[in-house]
Amino acid sequence: MKKILILLFAFQVILFSQNSKTPADYVNPFIGTKDMGHTFPGATVPFGMVQLSPETDTVLFTYGKGYNPEVYRYCSGYQYDDNTIVGFSHTHFNGTGHSDLGDFLIMPTVGDLQINPGTKNDPDSGYRSLFSHQTEEAHPGYYKVKLDDHKITAELTSTERVGFHKYTFPTSDSSHIILDLTSGIYNYDGKVVWSSIRVENDTLVTGYRQTNGWARTRLLYFAMTFSKQIESYGLVNKKELIYKGFWRKFNQNRNFPEQAGHEIVSYFNFKTEDGEAILIKFALSAVSTKNAIDNLQAEIPHWDFNKIKLLAKQKWNDELSKITIEAEDERKVNFYTSMYHSFMNPIIYNDVNGEYRGLDQNIYKADGFTNYTIFSLWDTYRALHPLYTILQQQRTNDIVNSMLAHYEQSVHKILPVWSHYSNENWCMIGYHAVPVIVDAYMKGLRNYDVKKAFDAVLSSSNYKPYDGIGYYKKYGFVPEDLNSNSASKTLEYSYDDWTIYKFAESIGEKKIADEYFKRAQSYKNLFDPVTKFIRAKNSDGKFKEPFDALSTANQGYIEGNAWNYSLYVPHDVKGFINLLGGKEKLITWIDSLFTMHISDESFAHSEDVDRAGMIGNYVHGNEPSHQVPYMYCYAGEPWKTQEKIHQIVNSMYKNRPDGLSGNDDCGQMSAWYIFSVLGFYPVAPGSNEYVVGSPCVESAVIKLENGNQFKIETENYSKKNIYIKEVYLNGKVLNRTFIKHEEIISGGTLRFVMSSTPNKDWVSEESSYPYSLTK
Amino acid sequence: MKKILILLFAFQVILFSQNSKTPADYVNPFIGTKDMGHTFPGATVPFGMVQLSPETDTVLFTYGKGYNPEVYRYCSGYQYDDNTIVGFSHTHFNGTGHSDLGDFLIMPTVGDLQINPGTKNDPDSGYRSLFSHQTEEAHPGYYKVKLDDHKITAELTSTERVGFHKYTFPTSDSSHIILDLTSGIYNYDGKVVWSSIRVENDTLVTGYRQTNGWARTRLLYFAMTFSKQIESYGLVNKKELIYKGFWRKFNQNRNFPEQAGHEIVSYFNFKTEDGEAILIKFALSAVSTKNAIDNLQAEIPHWDFNKIKLLAKQKWNDELSKITIEAEDERKVNFYTSMYHSFMNPIIYNDVNGEYRGLDQNIYKADGFTNYTIFSLWDTYRALHPLYTILQQQRTNDIVNSMLAHYEQSVHKILPVWSHYSNENWCMIGYHAVPVIVDAYMKGLRNYDVKKAFDAVLSSSNYKPYDGIGYYKKYGFVPEDLNSNSASKTLEYSYDDWTIYKFAESIGEKKIADEYFKRAQSYKNLFDPVTKFIRAKNSDGKFKEPFDALSTANQGYIEGNAWNYSLYVPHDVKGFINLLGGKEKLITWIDSLFTMHISDESFAHSEDVDRAGMIGNYVHGNEPSHQVPYMYCYAGEPWKTQEKIHQIVNSMYKNRPDGLSGNDDCGQMSAWYIFSVLGFYPVAPGSNEYVVGSPCVESAVIKLENGNQFKIETENYSKKNIYIKEVYLNGKVLNRTFIKHEEIISGGTLRFVMSSTPNKDWVSEESSYPYSLTK
Repeated sequence: MKKILILLFAFQVILFSQNSKTPADYVNPFIGTKDMGHTFPGATVPFGMVQLSPETDTVLFTYGKGYNPEVYRYCSGYQYDDNTIVGFSHTHFNGTGHSDLGDFLIMPTVGDLQINPGTKNDPDSGYRSLFSHQTEEAHPGYYKVKLDDHKITAELTSTERVGFHKYTFPTSDSSHIILDLTSGIYNYDGKVVWSSIRVENDTLVTGYRQTNGWARTRLLYFAMTFSKQIESYGLVNKKELIYKGFWRKFNQNRNFPEQAGHEIVSYFNFKTEDGEAILIKFALSAVSTKNAIDNLQAEIPHWDFNKIKLLAKQKWNDELSKITIEAEDERKVNFYTSMYHSFMNPIIYNDVNGEYRGLDQNIYKADGFTNYTIFSLWDTYRALHPLYTILQQQRTNDIVNSMLAHYEQSVHKILPVWSHYSNENWCMIGYHAVPVIVDAYMKGLRNYDVKKAFDAVLSSSNYKPYDGIGYYKKYGFVPEDLNSNSASKTLEYSYDDWTIYKFAESIGEKKIADEYFKRAQSYKNLFDPVTKFIRAKNSDGKFKEPFDALSTANQGYIEGNAWNYSLYVPHDVKGFINLLGGKEKLITWIDSLFTMHISDESFAHSEDVDRAGMIGNYVHGNEPSHQVPYMYCYAGEPWKTQEKIHQIVNSMYKNRPDGLSGNDDCGQMSAWYIFSVLGFYPVAPGSNEYVVGSPCVESAVIKLENGNQFKIETENYSKKNIYIKEVYLNGKVLNRTFIKHEEIISGGTLRFVMSSTPNKDWVSEESSYPYSLTK
Repeated sequence: MKKILILLFAFQVILFSQNSKTPADYVNPFIGTKDMGHTFPGATVPFGMVQLSPETDTVLFTYGKGYNPEVYRYCSGYQYDDNTIVGFSHTHFNGTGHSDLGDFLIMPTVGDLQINPGTKNDPDSGYRSLFSHQTEEAHPGYYKVKLDDHKITAELTSTERVGFHKYTFPTSDSSHIILDLTSGIYNYDGKVVWSSIRVENDTLVTGYRQTNGWARTRLLYFAMTFSKQIESYGLVNKKELIYKGFWRKFNQNRNFPEQAGHEIVSYFNFKTEDGEAILIKFALSAVSTKNAIDNLQAEIPHWDFNKIKLLAKQKWNDELSKITIEAEDERKVNFYTSMYHSFMNPIIYNDVNGEYRGLDQNIYKADGFTNYTIFSLWDTYRALHPLYTILQQQRTNDIVNSMLAHYEQSVHKILPVWSHYSNENWCMIGYHAVPVIVDAYMKGLRNYDVKKAFDAVLSSSNYKPYDGIGYYKKYGFVPEDLNSNSASKTLEYSYDDWTIYKFAESIGEKKIADEYFKRAQSYKNLFDPVTKFIRAKNSDGKFKEPFDALSTANQGYIEGNAWNYSLYVPHDVKGFINLLGGKEKLITWIDSLFTMHISDESFAHSEDVDRAGMIGNYVHGNEPSHQVPYMYCYAGEPWKTQEKIHQIVNSMYKNRPDGLSGNDDCGQMSAWYIFSVLGFYPVAPGSNEYVVGSPCVESAVIKLENGNQFKIETENYSKKNIYIKEVYLNGKVLNRTFIKHEEIISGGTLRFVMSSTPNKDWVSEESSYPYSLTK
């Protein structure tokens, strides 16, 4: 049996090499690196803590002194239009709309020592270098570029916790490697609360930095080792400490092995021959320098760069090949790049010995699970986590366990909202860890303490000081005068509460189920029968005035307007249709949404909403409307869903640097694409249903962790044949606009017969529409 | 056997109670709290990490903006002449001349809430309170005072890691307990690098603060629990963070359970009845809040204040009764207070689970030893550590192990210089951990890795970047133009090196012994045959000019002048006599030293040198001359030692707040007193000899850890009979001016026959003088 497996594996390798292209070869890490995508092109492995990537600029965040919109553009540190590279840092977010990280920037240079980054307009004023895309290469787990100013070729690869740098130098008596502890993303003067560095010996350096940013108290430790002995070095404190103590007896800036303070830049000098490579292994730990050293030794015990590069690619292929598709190359590139982006965040957040820093800053040992961090939940509960329930079942259990650990360590006793690196950053709204957990639970992923999970979802949905929950419970909606963005909050709480209703019902907690059944309909309290929109109310029960259905500013919606946000009723579309007065009203609404004109002014104050991500007034570049194209299926016109899916797939995802129409948001944009391309989408996670859209591939095979395969096949699929004529599940006609999670997991075949014209008779029975709370 | 021990113990207790006064009852913690002593009166247990004591003022250190001499007065937070108490904090140094600490200041108040301390001159401007010494009480392990402004009686006691507060309130609807995380000793704006606080539930609060002071990077965590539920509270960030993040959605200042930032003051509100006591248990940990909670639960699992108070007293009596003396009450008070002060620093520095923060900031588990910190080694290697080799043998092994752990965690690979709380603060000079270790080793205290200890002393004495060691090795002295205080450094390195010579010789490392035999005589390189002083030389080999033998400023001596410092040759007094040209020269020198006039100007720049601690030009209030009175014994005139000892004992140690003539310096001043009162002193630790002075008690019994007793008896002892006529060791005439360590440890009796006139014939043979390297 073992032999056969090895043979199979060998066969696969041969297939790949003969077949020339592996899934990883289709990935284009530059997609999304221009404008709104906020992705980064650097080297990482799936869910790796180290995401080693170039910064093309470091813009200071000037909160409180007038907001600098440039900062937003640099959420991932990289913008494709730039022509300089500041250096290579070890941590990045994939596609966020706010930021942090960019820790431990390394830059190799030659010539006069410079310890300031310099400016974009005058790169010679600092250590940064000009570069061109001609010399740049990026593949999963590998990045390469020529630093023109220094004539250095930089190559990067990575394991989960260790970044591996290879810098090929010219001949020089003054080659340097800069490690800038002050550099960071969303940086501001004072962000580095404290930092420390120690030259342990002539190849090993350790240290840490503590920052106060999006994460209020963030500690990250490192261990860095060079392949070559350091000739000389300096650990420079650019901002003198007020209190110098008796350290002043040393010249700490030059060849003195330890330094601490707020603004430390270090340099390490070498002599190099032409073509000589200096390699750096750079390990991270959130716990200690000791653990960073352990991580380093455990993950890369040698200096074979190519071996780690190949291993990184193999790790990606292991993940990416969980789905194979047949489609034109452009689609394959976008699809595998979406898969790639879907498996970047969250990240593994414990050391090789299992230790991690908890939310309370105490050190814990992950017991029986892998701990994860970076939960951009307002984004990712929609499609990314549901995608994981199919492709990453074990990780989903780990993620639930990580969230329950967060809950236990939380002084508020609530689940994460937007959490990263032992911190709750409180960004955006909702308690969307709840649907993530309930969705996993409902789908049978239960390798965690279910009782604790139930306690956690109840506790999170009842924590009064958070975002108007106290008012929500009292009034049945969040009053805008007491807590802003109240319409969005009320809508999302309603959905989240519906998942708790499902959970409670499932475990037989009838009384609680009844309570949340009621809470799940809170959105109705904000329905305005006159304008037909979900609108913000004040605590006097009156709608907030003046009302502007198109504006995203001060209307009670967060990053959205009434036209888009009112449709956020994923668990009760039928209930909403009833409010509207019939499904035709919903059809008209969505039709209009996609075609109407909206002025720039309407969304000028919402930086996450951008013309590039819009079709009419429908905003695909941001999350609140991601379910909207599928809502036609709840109103008996699934062919319109089919049409819109192809329109969005074709127009909003392109194989080019500006190919993403909005922030990737830790993979949510990508997950939407993966589902939609396959032909179905999780409109209401927790329902165990996926609403059927329209496949954008000839065929696809999903390889499941249980060994089963779920196949998507098409007949007559072409660019024009985007409408469904018939659907067959395991050979039987599918007369409903949804498929069930268990149907996927059991393995089988979903066969679409396509047509260039809509089949308006497919699924005419209302009982075959997807789940709604209201029957 | 067990029964007998219990009976004996019971008998002892009865004896104490019948006899009315235990050793602890003689202790007056107020000695040294006025002017130069820098002691504190608060509650602590022997070597306890928690040293819970009132601050009578909090003066801001303004380093770099003109030094404020007031700061120096508040090294321990308390000055007896003050009439306000700011609050009670948990960490203090005993008698240092520089400072830090004062962590976690608690203040109970009544009435309008005030979160600023207010000023000494206008106490109503803040939470501080007037108090008077009439209501103040201090005993080992217990402190009490009435806070007049608030009509609150404050009582404090402690275990090793937990402070126990008892505040008896008047009737009030607005009683408060303030916890000020910004308060500190040697404080300055910006000292708190970061702090954090969490209200875990309605009685438990946790948090930490990270400071940048004398300790460059110091982290201390706490767990605090109230005996009564908190009614309401506020965690106020007095200095708004630049970056507010999404925390701004909360009102963090009022009843919100977590806060972090640079300047946090918290308050907890209660309603109290008249005479109602609110108790607080406050645990520390240098590792984590989790460990602080563990410490709290392990050490005080109940709310019985009186029980802990009695336990603390018992712990002190266990230590203090290691020596019993017969003497007049005033002497007993000074003696037991000296014992008390000798057992305060170093402190236990690991949690109940054995974990501690190492010098490299990693967390370690103390394996087979108790970890200690606070090593004021320039002071304490002289007499305090030698005292421990008699009274604290197990702790001496622990201390050596703690120092070796420091060595291993040091990036410089050297032993502590002046270390506290996981930090080397680099204060003062020398590598005096070396004599501490060698002294322990030579005396047979070897429960540590001797090989590692030897490596550590070699490494410490060869670390070139530290205080001119590189130059010292090159030139045979430290050149003043290259490294200041060079004469002091050369003298002290010579002594330290001599101990390495002894160590090397003992373990048969002949080559190394030879090298250090030579290094031990480096002091000779600075002897000026013209002026007869040890003087600073520059790297050109010439003595630094102009020379002022009386000045303590810029002459190459640290906190001393040529007159005093030149005599620092404890290991080779004979060698120095030879340089001088005969022992009469030394006699004349010391005679003059004690009688000559010195102007205030001469020591105006040395804050540790004060008229109160001087006899002529001899400075007893500071350390460099502590061996000087005993040097007569090396020149054949021991009666002059006898005379001076009584003069110093009588004039420099008084039972009153200003009773200490200089900084207690973590017990060195006290240890000098204990030895001298007993009749001998360790002039050259490492020699295993104690130079005989003159007893200042009728009798004394030292109870040793091996069960032996060493008795000091006198005949004809009186205030006038201070001279030795004869000495008998175990009944045999002692014809030498020293006793050996093994003679003490073996147990026995040292009997002094006293006289009102010197016996100039006692020990006339030069071969019976104490050890000198030069025979």
